[in-house]
Amino acid sequence: MHETLAALAAGDISVATAEARLAGYATGESGRFDAAREARSGLPEAVFAEGKEDEEVVELLDLALETTGRGLATRIDDETAAVVRAGVSEKWPEAETIHDERAGVLRAHTPEYEPPSLDAVVGVVTAGTVDGGPAGEAAVIAREMGATVERYDDVGVAGLHRLLDDLDGIRGADVLVVAAGREGALPTVLAGLVDIPVIALPIASGYGYGGEGEAALSGALQSCTALTTVNIDAGFVAGAQAGLIARVLDGAR
Amino acid sequence: MHETLAALAAGDISVATAEARLAGYATGESGRFDAAREARSGLPEAVFAEGKEDEEVVELLDLALETTGRGLATRIDDETAAVVRAGVSEKWPEAETIHDERAGVLRAHTPEYEPPSLDAVVGVVTAGTVDGGPAGEAAVIAREMGATVERYDDVGVAGLHRLLDDLDGIRGADVLVVAAGREGALPTVLAGLVDIPVIALPIASGYGYGGEGEAALSGALQSCTALTTVNIDAGFVAGAQAGLIARVLDGAR
Amino acid sequence: MHETLAALAAGDISVATAEARLAGYATGESGRFDAAREARSGLPEAVFAEGKEDEEVVELLDLALETTGRGLATRIDDETAAVVRAGVSEKWPEAETIHDERAGVLRAHTPEYEPPSLDAVVGVVTAGTVDGGPAGEAAVIAREMGATVERYDDVGVAGLHRLLDDLDGIRGADVLVVAAGREGALPTVLAGLVDIPVIALPIASGYGYGGEGEAALSGALQSCTALTTVNIDAGFVAGAQAGLIARVLDGAR
Amino acid sequence: MHETLAALAAGDISVATAEARLAGYATGESGRFDAAREARSGLPEAVFAEGKEDEEVVELLDLALETTGRGLATRIDDETAAVVRAGVSEKWPEAETIHDERAGVLRAHTPEYEPPSLDAVVGVVTAGTVDGGPAGEAAVIAREMGATVERYDDVGVAGLHRLLDDLDGIRGADVLVVAAGREGALPTVLAGLVDIPVIALPIASGYGYGGEGEAALSGALQSCTALTTVNIDAGFVAGAQAGLIARVLDGAR
Amino acid sequence: MHETLAALAAGDISVATAEARLAGYATGESGRFDAAREARSGLPEAVFAEGKEDEEVVELLDLALETTGRGLATRIDDETAAVVRAGVSEKWPEAETIHDERAGVLRAHTPEYEPPSLDAVVGVVTAGTVDGGPAGEAAVIAREMGATVERYDDVGVAGLHRLLDDLDGIRGADVLVVAAGREGALPTVLAGLVDIPVIALPIASGYGYGGEGEAALSGALQSCTALTTVNIDAGFVAGAQAGLIARVLDGAR
Amino acid sequence: MHETLAALAAGDISVATAEARLAGYATGESGRFDAAREARSGLPEAVFAEGKEDEEVVELLDLALETTGRGLATRIDDETAAVVRAGVSEKWPEAETIHDERAGVLRAHTPEYEPPSLDAVVGVVTAGTVDGGPAGEAAVIAREMGATVERYDDVGVAGLHRLLDDLDGIRGADVLVVAAGREGALPTVLAGLVDIPVIALPIASGYGYGGEGEAALSGALQSCTALTTVNIDAGFVAGAQAGLIARVLDGAR
Amino acid sequence: MHETLAALAAGDISVATAEARLAGYATGESGRFDAAREARSGLPEAVFAEGKEDEEVVELLDLALETTGRGLATRIDDETAAVVRAGVSEKWPEAETIHDERAGVLRAHTPEYEPPSLDAVVGVVTAGTVDGGPAGEAAVIAREMGATVERYDDVGVAGLHRLLDDLDGIRGADVLVVAAGREGALPTVLAGLVDIPVIALPIASGYGYGGEGEAALSGALQSCTALTTVNIDAGFVAGAQAGLIARVLDGAR
Amino acid sequence: MHETLAALAAGDISVATAEARLAGYATGESGRFDAAREARSGLPEAVFAEGKEDEEVVELLDLALETTGRGLATRIDDETAAVVRAGVSEKWPEAETIHDERAGVLRAHTPEYEPPSLDAVVGVVTAGTVDGGPAGEAAVIAREMGATVERYDDVGVAGLHRLLDDLDGIRGADVLVVAAGREGALPTVLAGLVDIPVIALPIASGYGYGGEGEAALSGALQSCTALTTVNIDAGFVAGAQAGLIARVLDGAR
Repeated sequence: MHETLAALAAGDISVATAEARLAGYATGESGRFDAAREARSGLPEAVFAEGKEDEEVVELLDLALETTGRGLATRIDDETAAVVRAGVSEKWPEAETIHDERAGVLRAHTPEYEPPSLDAVVGVVTAGTVDGGPAGEAAVIAREMGATVERYDDVGVAGLHRLLDDLDGIRGADVLVVAAGREGALPTVLAGLVDIPVIALPIASGYGYGGEGEAALSGALQSCTALTTVNIDAGFVAGAQAGLIARVLDGAR
Repeated sequence: MHETLAALAAGDISVATAEARLAGYATGESGRFDAAREARSGLPEAVFAEGKEDEEVVELLDLALETTGRGLATRIDDETAAVVRAGVSEKWPEAETIHDERAGVLRAHTPEYEPPSLDAVVGVVTAGTVDGGPAGEAAVIAREMGATVERYDDVGVAGLHRLLDDLDGIRGADVLVVAAGREGALPTVLAGLVDIPVIALPIASGYGYGGEGEAALSGALQSCTALTTVNIDAGFVAGAQAGLIARVLDGAR
Repeated sequence: MHETLAALAAGDISVATAEARLAGYATGESGRFDAAREARSGLPEAVFAEGKEDEEVVELLDLALETTGRGLATRIDDETAAVVRAGVSEKWPEAETIHDERAGVLRAHTPEYEPPSLDAVVGVVTAGTVDGGPAGEAAVIAREMGATVERYDDVGVAGLHRLLDDLDGIRGADVLVVAAGREGALPTVLAGLVDIPVIALPIASGYGYGGEGEAALSGALQSCTALTTVNIDAGFVAGAQAGLIARVLDGAR
Repeated sequence: MHETLAALAAGDISVATAEARLAGYATGESGRFDAAREARSGLPEAVFAEGKEDEEVVELLDLALETTGRGLATRIDDETAAVVRAGVSEKWPEAETIHDERAGVLRAHTPEYEPPSLDAVVGVVTAGTVDGGPAGEAAVIAREMGATVERYDDVGVAGLHRLLDDLDGIRGADVLVVAAGREGALPTVLAGLVDIPVIALPIASGYGYGGEGEAALSGALQSCTALTTVNIDAGFVAGAQAGLIARVLDGAR
Repeated sequence: MHETLAALAAGDISVATAEARLAGYATGESGRFDAAREARSGLPEAVFAEGKEDEEVVELLDLALETTGRGLATRIDDETAAVVRAGVSEKWPEAETIHDERAGVLRAHTPEYEPPSLDAVVGVVTAGTVDGGPAGEAAVIAREMGATVERYDDVGVAGLHRLLDDLDGIRGADVLVVAAGREGALPTVLAGLVDIPVIALPIASGYGYGGEGEAALSGALQSCTALTTVNIDAGFVAGAQAGLIARVLDGAR
Repeated sequence: MHETLAALAAGDISVATAEARLAGYATGESGRFDAAREARSGLPEAVFAEGKEDEEVVELLDLALETTGRGLATRIDDETAAVVRAGVSEKWPEAETIHDERAGVLRAHTPEYEPPSLDAVVGVVTAGTVDGGPAGEAAVIAREMGATVERYDDVGVAGLHRLLDDLDGIRGADVLVVAAGREGALPTVLAGLVDIPVIALPIASGYGYGGEGEAALSGALQSCTALTTVNIDAGFVAGAQAGLIARVLDGAR
Repeated sequence: MHETLAALAAGDISVATAEARLAGYATGESGRFDAAREARSGLPEAVFAEGKEDEEVVELLDLALETTGRGLATRIDDETAAVVRAGVSEKWPEAETIHDERAGVLRAHTPEYEPPSLDAVVGVVTAGTVDGGPAGEAAVIAREMGATVERYDDVGVAGLHRLLDDLDGIRGADVLVVAAGREGALPTVLAGLVDIPVIALPIASGYGYGGEGEAALSGALQSCTALTTVNIDAGFVAGAQAGLIARVLDGAR
Repeated sequence: MHETLAALAAGDISVATAEARLAGYATGESGRFDAAREARSGLPEAVFAEGKEDEEVVELLDLALETTGRGLATRIDDETAAVVRAGVSEKWPEAETIHDERAGVLRAHTPEYEPPSLDAVVGVVTAGTVDGGPAGEAAVIAREMGATVERYDDVGVAGLHRLLDDLDGIRGADVLVVAAGREGALPTVLAGLVDIPVIALPIASGYGYGGEGEAALSGALQSCTALTTVNIDAGFVAGAQAGLIARVLDGAR
């Protein structure tokens, strides 16, 4: 504690950083930023942009950059992302900002930020084009946590040969995130063909009964193989869990 | 009409038969038996045994045998079947009665009954042991309608190689009934591999969310391939629809 | 394979066509197009336009035309259809494009495309005006698969005489697609009057409890007659299943 | 009030009767009996037997007989009915007790009881055998309220000719209670053919999705004709509402 | 039939009128109009405007006016109503058109139209301001069927004294339509205080669990008194059922 | 801590009591008993008997008596209660055990136990006989927490006069628990008539749609007055919350 | 009554005020205003703005100010609030109007209005930023009823240390309103740490299964501690119930 | 293949073993046993005993022992287990059979069976006594896959100090299975305190709305931390997924 207070008194760190170090979180107008989350639970704290004002997102990213050197905003649409990016760049002109439109993720890193690197491969698999958004979010998060991410797209079970063509590659991963909407059969079929953990990522596609991802979710929960699942479209959670497995794995290597 | 009445007057047919021919149904204590159903809609009229008293089932089968030469009781448990079988045999000593325990179907035919015969093959496929009941019901009904039925059992997607081993045989059918519980992926996977109509038969297995066949039903309705479905455990309906397709097909040959 | 590669080397076919022939699918920016689907499972591969970008639809139709001579886009709204049509016509000036607004289907055929023709009649029946969209989609798909389609509209059970007036015509079909919303009684009533397979197509009409097609779907699944069903508004699936039955029937004739 | 108190003092009436007249209800160990219900809201107060102890039912019927000369117990199974009947007969040896097994109703009347009589006809229609219980309950209640009840059974829509055969009779009623389970199409079809009020009585039959009466209820609520409905198996309510209409009608004649 | 054909030949009636008289319905571009509905089932045929194109509504009202002298459009918003009204007035300049905004009903009558008149009173009761739309729809329909309609508004149970103040008036009706949203307690409370039939009209108000009318609907179905219900917001159905009761009552007077 | 250890060493307290004082819970074969719960959160720790073995209940009550002088088992059926009572009495012959059958609660107190006493009145109101179980559980718990409990039974809204007769008494309470099943209108009606906090206790009565307490729960959540609710049949929770309010109130007096 | 009429005759009070005093409510174009609600049930009558026209809100607030000196509009968006505020200020230029945007509440007080003051503390706790709207509504209502309100924000269980940091302050309140969305664990965790009544306020955040507040609501109802709940986002109800407890408490002090 | 056939010819292996090696599964009367499952997907093939006949379980375990040296039956009740155990011991007298009653798992190993051993720790945590069954099943399966399993029981959030007491131990695991019923807050609270992957195991406890594990499942899916989940009571799946992570981890060490 002494060290932190000394650094604050010396002007080396900001009040926010000091508070984050001492209390485990930083407080701004738009809420508290859980700066210690990564240290405590291995997950990068991300700003859920949906339903927040543009300024709130900017301020929370600002807190994030100040206290951890990195800022992540998820479920951010193109329009908001442009405004937020500008706002962030104004305050942090030297920070690098990356906007992955499909995944709906905006990332910012200060030049000093040292990204983690894990010796583990997360495979991200999709059944069709429409699964790309949440699957992309999962991929981004796993990468931010330091994992190597490999993508296998458009291998839905309606044309099983596409899946079989990619199977060797898929088997090379340490853990899989498998995104599928509609009836969501892919996670089950794939889990029957590999011997690594599979995390199902049900996608909110489809209409009528069981639509909007409900059939895919219930299919994952009822799977006759063994897999775990996250909620519909919960790309962040799927990627983060895969990242946590990668962390444990990296520690073991 | 004259002919029927003359036969009745001559004692050649019973009152029930005469009524069935003229009115299209026969009336007993336990309800009306739709004797003309097969002529009108191609379906054998079957007695749904669940929730009926033993005597009611016996009486309705009696009406069925008297007016059509055949009696079918579905969703009948072992205990009821034994009692009913005895009751039917008492009235119709020369009739043949067959009880398919797994399928829960009791059948009776008078010696005069001429079973239909259709030049068409209905394939009945199951994912696992637990699907055998409703699948068996479907098979019995399709056979009673005259179709040739072929069975392919235990080919669930958790071990895809079992399905691929049987694929050539399956492709030889004219129409498929595909029974699966839990996440119900089999109808979708199979429909992507064949070019004949697939009727999904969701099975009430599984527990928790989406259990009791709900995930399998919603999976069939959300399938990314093209198939139709019947309700959970509705083996009679699946077999009857397959039988109707076989009838149309037979007419065309 | 040699033949395909030779044709590619000679410039007679495109890379996409070669890939489609060899791998069973073609790959573009917007995903993989399952060009072999019709050969494998009897169904034309259609582009589900809802939720896709205009350019994605154009590109996928382009792949479809290149590899199969035909492109189908379903659930496409008027505005998108206009843009897509223009995009397709630009690349394929000699192709014929047809937009069925009510059915929400856009079709394109190259001059070389030889449409299939099946000796079988699919009857498409609607209860009311509002059922016309998905019923139209079913009709278009069945026709594209080669079946003869006959329409019987506005014969809902609230005025039973309208249905009885059309019954003789309806009975002439080989298989029926019966579209109805609200309480969805028409498929059941009709299936009790004919001896051919009936596919229920529940429509997302009605409000309050059981609205948006839920009552119609549950009515189809609970029908006291024997019929199969597709999901709410799933016109493509209903038409495709009817088309598959027509295919089997045609093979038998 | 003076009159009641005088009669009580003279021993002409019991304390329970006096309380019922003055307070509008009578109080026993098992709860309060709403003796004034019929005067206030036109409905006979009935004892809902399900979930009550045998003695509670006996005591409440005792209160009912003492204060109104009639006792009704609904949803009473055979075993309970036998015990309760004995208990009631012990206290009221001269009372007539009738147990309608199918309807699950036990009735008791003192010799002094004067049943109401209304100049109105309630038609009670069923689709199949299984609908007989709640339909019977409706019939009993409507009769107890004084209406003439006519029954039309087994006229489900799977065999439409049965319904058409009975249509003339049905049209002679003033109000209809129409009981149907499974998909529950009968109330809708019938309401399209008559010009009198139809009360749907959905029945808890059927299995799988929409089973246990849900499809029938949602079908009644979504009906494309105009009808009202009661809850699944709510025979008492359907009969009581029909009885109330009969009362209004009788007042008008 | 001869008479109709003669009138047609003489130009006294239109083709649509002749078809309506002979076939029971008239056919236009936008569907069939069930002109014989009122004669057959006592209900005015109304055009459900929601989801129809403006021209379709105009054409169907045109058919209605031509064959019955009256046109009704329900669930019509203000904008559509203005356009439709203009379109109708253009074709039928002498017809009177009335638009009830709150009720969402547009009515048109030719000068020759003779409105029915029934000797019966329908009471329409609302719990709060928000119930006014569907309650208004019910009132309009009951009036169009000839009943006298009396309104009692804003008598929700949160302030029971308001209800008690109006109770005498309410008891003077022959049948009640009681509209309430949220928890929908009013129909139950009121049915316990009157001895005439009560039709619950649940309103789609409220948010969260049980919102959008679900709690009100389930409350009506579970009511500890005896009442029937229509679907959420189904003002037309409630008013029509009340009108049918009024018709029967009028016939009895 | 020293004091506790000294008492343990001196044999004045048991190991379980010492552990409970130091760790805040006691550990037995059947789980940990949260002996400090009452001190921490004001609630008596009760043993939820449903689904536990008889011996487990006995052991947990034993731990409870040893560490707090009181043992409570809720949702205990008559058969279990008899066995458990005997088991408890064997170990604690001088303890008083009380079994409230209707409420399904078994209580035991050592002679040394000093019951709390709060200067506050909890009113427990029921709509009908069937509500008595959970309402009784609520009453027992509130009394065990020290509150004065007053009961008002059988005042359901179907006969509003019963409620109005008891209103003055009800208004004298400080907080109300109002139990009602079916449509659950009573909490709303009552909350509109009093100015004290109302806790709704929905009861699992009723059948069909909204049955088993769902309509009552959704009615409480949608109430147009202001009240809070507990889950269906959650008598313990309702009584405990009322008890907590009584505690706060007692502290204020 | 005499006094009120005399005041009216003397012009000291308006007709609306006189009616409100005598009848318990005031009647305007837009409905009846329950002016006596606060006296009767302790709750301020508030205008639920959602779904009402601007003028209706203005008129009802006008009635409120005239009869009680205070007007409250809840669930009012910014645009409506601006229009309504202007309308109110025009009629009541001397009244103070306050618009709390986050809470969606508009308040107006005449200079003569004397706000209540209660000697009790309501703690309002939120898990995250998104819970601020309904929590703010609860806080405003509790304050308007006279309670002292203290806020504890952003103490969700994902970072438990934030909660523990604020625990001492939280324990100082008399009653807690605890707002949380997503899985809604905070009310349960907090109720296990305090000994005062906790009212859960589930928030409509989250997506996928259990989203929009359903998981939070079911978590509150299933809580393994003892707490009561209000509906999703029902800030008014939570604040009002807390206010009622504060009233009882104040009376006791 | 040659080797297998030679061994069969030499009588060294059984037909079942030969089939299992060549085809990947063994076929018996009761279905096919997927003997190659562990090699292919890392999971031991277990016999789901629920709903199977005793002899079927015996036969499938027999096949399992013959082809893999180990047999596992899950969700087996005490009575069945006794019968099955006897049946297995009769055929395999030298095999060791272990029945874990709480977990509902029966295990059998031949003396030759060499259990796998993984260098990884799976922590299995429960909130309360009732969670012990599925948690036990998870523990057994993870152990059978070779992981070291550590248990932490009765640490539910109602008494947070119990959890904090065990936190250091819990943090020592590589992956956690966290079982909780009711509102299921424990997985979320725990995942916020550790930096290893958490698999939620929702338990079917609780009654009323959200009961039977639904609230716990939706809480896991909506968790504001990052965790994955299995279906309600799916102990096998949770344990198997933890075991797969342990396998990957072991490979890395």
